[in-house]
Amino acid sequence: MLGLMQDWPLTLDRIIAHARTWHGETEVVSRSIEGPILRSTYGQIHERARRLSRVLLDLGVQPGDRVGAMALNTGRHLEVWYGVMGIGAVCHTLNPRMSPDQICYIINHAEDRIIFCDAIFLPILHSRRDQMPSVQRIIALNDEDYEPLIAAAAPGDLAWGGFDENTAAGLCYTSGTTGEPKGVLYSHRSNFLHTFATMSADVMGVSSRDVVLPVVPMFHANAWGLAFSGPAAGAKLVMPGAKLDGASIFELLETEKVTLSAAVPTVFQMLLTYLRETGQRLTTLQRVVIGGAALPPALMHAFQDEQDVLVVHAWGMTETSPLGVVSMPESRVAALSPAAQRVHLEKQGRPPIGIELRIADETGADLPHDGQAVGRLMVRGVFVAGGYFRGEGGDILDDRGFFDTGDIATIDEYGFMEITDRAKDVIKSGGEWISSIEIENLTMAHPAVEIAAVVGAAHPKWDERPVVVAKLKPEASVDRAEILAFLEGKIPRWWTPDDVVFVDDIPLGPTGKVDKKLIRQRMAGYVLPTA
Amino acid sequence: MLGLMQDWPLTLDRIIAHARTWHGETEVVSRSIEGPILRSTYGQIHERARRLSRVLLDLGVQPGDRVGAMALNTGRHLEVWYGVMGIGAVCHTLNPRMSPDQICYIINHAEDRIIFCDAIFLPILHSRRDQMPSVQRIIALNDEDYEPLIAAAAPGDLAWGGFDENTAAGLCYTSGTTGEPKGVLYSHRSNFLHTFATMSADVMGVSSRDVVLPVVPMFHANAWGLAFSGPAAGAKLVMPGAKLDGASIFELLETEKVTLSAAVPTVFQMLLTYLRETGQRLTTLQRVVIGGAALPPALMHAFQDEQDVLVVHAWGMTETSPLGVVSMPESRVAALSPAAQRVHLEKQGRPPIGIELRIADETGADLPHDGQAVGRLMVRGVFVAGGYFRGEGGDILDDRGFFDTGDIATIDEYGFMEITDRAKDVIKSGGEWISSIEIENLTMAHPAVEIAAVVGAAHPKWDERPVVVAKLKPEASVDRAEILAFLEGKIPRWWTPDDVVFVDDIPLGPTGKVDKKLIRQRMAGYVLPTA
Repeated sequence: MLGLMQDWPLTLDRIIAHARTWHGETEVVSRSIEGPILRSTYGQIHERARRLSRVLLDLGVQPGDRVGAMALNTGRHLEVWYGVMGIGAVCHTLNPRMSPDQICYIINHAEDRIIFCDAIFLPILHSRRDQMPSVQRIIALNDEDYEPLIAAAAPGDLAWGGFDENTAAGLCYTSGTTGEPKGVLYSHRSNFLHTFATMSADVMGVSSRDVVLPVVPMFHANAWGLAFSGPAAGAKLVMPGAKLDGASIFELLETEKVTLSAAVPTVFQMLLTYLRETGQRLTTLQRVVIGGAALPPALMHAFQDEQDVLVVHAWGMTETSPLGVVSMPESRVAALSPAAQRVHLEKQGRPPIGIELRIADETGADLPHDGQAVGRLMVRGVFVAGGYFRGEGGDILDDRGFFDTGDIATIDEYGFMEITDRAKDVIKSGGEWISSIEIENLTMAHPAVEIAAVVGAAHPKWDERPVVVAKLKPEASVDRAEILAFLEGKIPRWWTPDDVVFVDDIPLGPTGKVDKKLIRQRMAGYVLPTA
Repeated sequence: MLGLMQDWPLTLDRIIAHARTWHGETEVVSRSIEGPILRSTYGQIHERARRLSRVLLDLGVQPGDRVGAMALNTGRHLEVWYGVMGIGAVCHTLNPRMSPDQICYIINHAEDRIIFCDAIFLPILHSRRDQMPSVQRIIALNDEDYEPLIAAAAPGDLAWGGFDENTAAGLCYTSGTTGEPKGVLYSHRSNFLHTFATMSADVMGVSSRDVVLPVVPMFHANAWGLAFSGPAAGAKLVMPGAKLDGASIFELLETEKVTLSAAVPTVFQMLLTYLRETGQRLTTLQRVVIGGAALPPALMHAFQDEQDVLVVHAWGMTETSPLGVVSMPESRVAALSPAAQRVHLEKQGRPPIGIELRIADETGADLPHDGQAVGRLMVRGVFVAGGYFRGEGGDILDDRGFFDTGDIATIDEYGFMEITDRAKDVIKSGGEWISSIEIENLTMAHPAVEIAAVVGAAHPKWDERPVVVAKLKPEASVDRAEILAFLEGKIPRWWTPDDVVFVDDIPLGPTGKVDKKLIRQRMAGYVLPTA
């Protein structure tokens, strides 16, 4: 027997329509790529997105066609999303930090027909223009190219939505540590449900009184859903454009009275440095969600202690839309002392309803939530990928329907998940696993270290032994013995790295993460010192 | 083109399973019907609900079968919900405040097979037992009848969920202003999405650190979803059982450290009286959502000013699952002075994403959001009824798919909806509806009565109380007491009119219907007799 409730498909056009009707005057403020601050409203974004839909229809874009977007966070980028998705086309976010060859590969793989592009990224596309046969037109998101199209378009009674909620809405390729990038094809339903989940109090808790600054790019796992949850909640959005340095972010936070932000650790590390150097205070920011890479505890505590800003650790991936867990204190943890709370809150966090999480041993069996058992992190849920675009990677779910994240993790007795390593980065020594991430975080807490990576080096007896690869801060000086002494007592004795290698450069990948694959290549000829 | 996300149906078994896994030790505390406080956990509720499913399967209950629940808010009632819904059966909540004849009618209309019932309500069912042919068994939710069944049941690998998310989950009859009660048939999907919507910051904002006391009954529009959002968020639940007087509610609020409650105005009016009489202070309660009847501004402000408790006005109906709007300040209102904010916050409120609301003129056209235009309140959305059980009432949606709430409302420039009148003449007493038409029809069955109308008269405690206005037949004679005696047993005791006023003339409107508007004008100076 079926229920007798209304048929109301979860299509994303309803989100911007809701914002138009109930929060029509709420602002979307952008630092434009050209520099000046542009002010818009949800009412205007809605109208302009409908005009953009008209432009697409006039260009012959059909439902299911892919439309690329290579752009930083601005109101225009937001218009592109809703304009593309509203007519059932697929918005393919392109990460400009990928190599031109990779970008060219994924455009061809996706068969993008139209690409909207910030003017600063046009050279990337033009350098491969003749290798992109599916691309019919590239439209620069600027006054010269984009605005005349929007001005001339007549949306009229153009229809939005009205299709199956499982219709594809977005396409985002993972940077792919092995092989070519693979595309995650989000549906209207999955993005809508991700929006609901992230609006809940223990995830992002976005409200209509929030002013939200998504530092995390819209091409980086959907800006963690803020381009949807912002208008769904009616929060003012502040889009930072191209300037993510400490001074620029500080200026936006203060001028626009931002209450909530979301970013990778690097950006808030730069902001912290700026705040300390200038002695400035954040007067409106209440909380910031940090993910995309492990959050250094020192950064978390500095914002809380020095700026009274709640820093919340989170974890997710392109395949989880992206939010998987958030480190909010549940009731038992909230009852602990501040110091005892930190032990849990420094971890990646707990899953909201809609996400099922487990750690599995090598046979696939569940491991206990005891904070000790280490296993492969498996995830299943209402906004988790079931397969990649065009079947790349084959069947990616296990026999219980769980996706293997490629992460290695523990889950403690309070339900806090902690990633101890990437499966491919884990160091196997004497049959046991050593967490490279934990040693990295501890090493980076040393005042002389700017950034560090820990990789496994071949060892004749133990198989692999950990080696620290560190880049020091300018003018800083430290030696191998001091680093090892600094780690002593903080990690099991047998985890102690066999060596510390100082380098001038730690390579980062397109999403800002340390590129360990490249580090391992550079270390190819490295031989461990004999004890 | 469809997205490639996982197939994860929104079935309600996943909510209690999530609570079991991630909040297994979080408490569900109940004041039992027998009196003592019973303590349980989500882990135990989950296990016992599965045992209850086994009991049902052993009794031959099939997917789609209706299972009745006539019970106050307790942990056992929660087990019944999840145990019934988990196997795809339909949990039919029975309101014990309806008349025995109405209860008998809806049990037969629903064809309930099993009924779980608090022992105090057994006499109601037994009084009509031989008129309920579908009812195979009545199980009292007590130590003698219920507990042995749970103890003996072996859930084993009994399957929960695994069916279409549009499968019916719950059935709740509206008390029906015209004709017989009509059943709203919720689906797993609609209840799950209502859960997501109510967990957002601007609706209930339930978090895992909340301790929630749902005063509003589970049979009254699903306790506003708290039986789902509580476990979904991992909030501790405090179930008040039968004692809703000021002293009992105060004791639970303080002893269990409640942070969030939800109730009809009457209960919080009683609590306020108790607090004032005893000089007690609420030390943990942060906010309370009030709905089911218009919230008297004095009550709202008294809790905020005297107890520092945020009182949030809300509106909904059985047909909206029930939350339709909540009166949380959006950004522009939050920027006003406290006095200016109150003008808006005293209204019913604003809709969350998932609810579309409009006011319509007599032709069905939209009226503006200006706080002046008065129109029929129309609602459409993801958890709004599309029709009644067994097709009663026919097609209830307009040509745009909106449901006519039967309320008359304005919407102001900040999006706050205010109900100004009722299209039909229902009387709201203590947060529950009294059907004026039903009492009228019964009264007119008295041989001395020619025509009668029932209108609401203001009452300091119950909001409104019904008054019969009657014109007698020529030469006929009857007094107040005889009319009331005539009604006794035909309607719930609390529906008994507070007065009978005899008049020489009952005005009729142009279509021959009683003109209640004119009657109310004539009754303008009327004051209820003191009991």
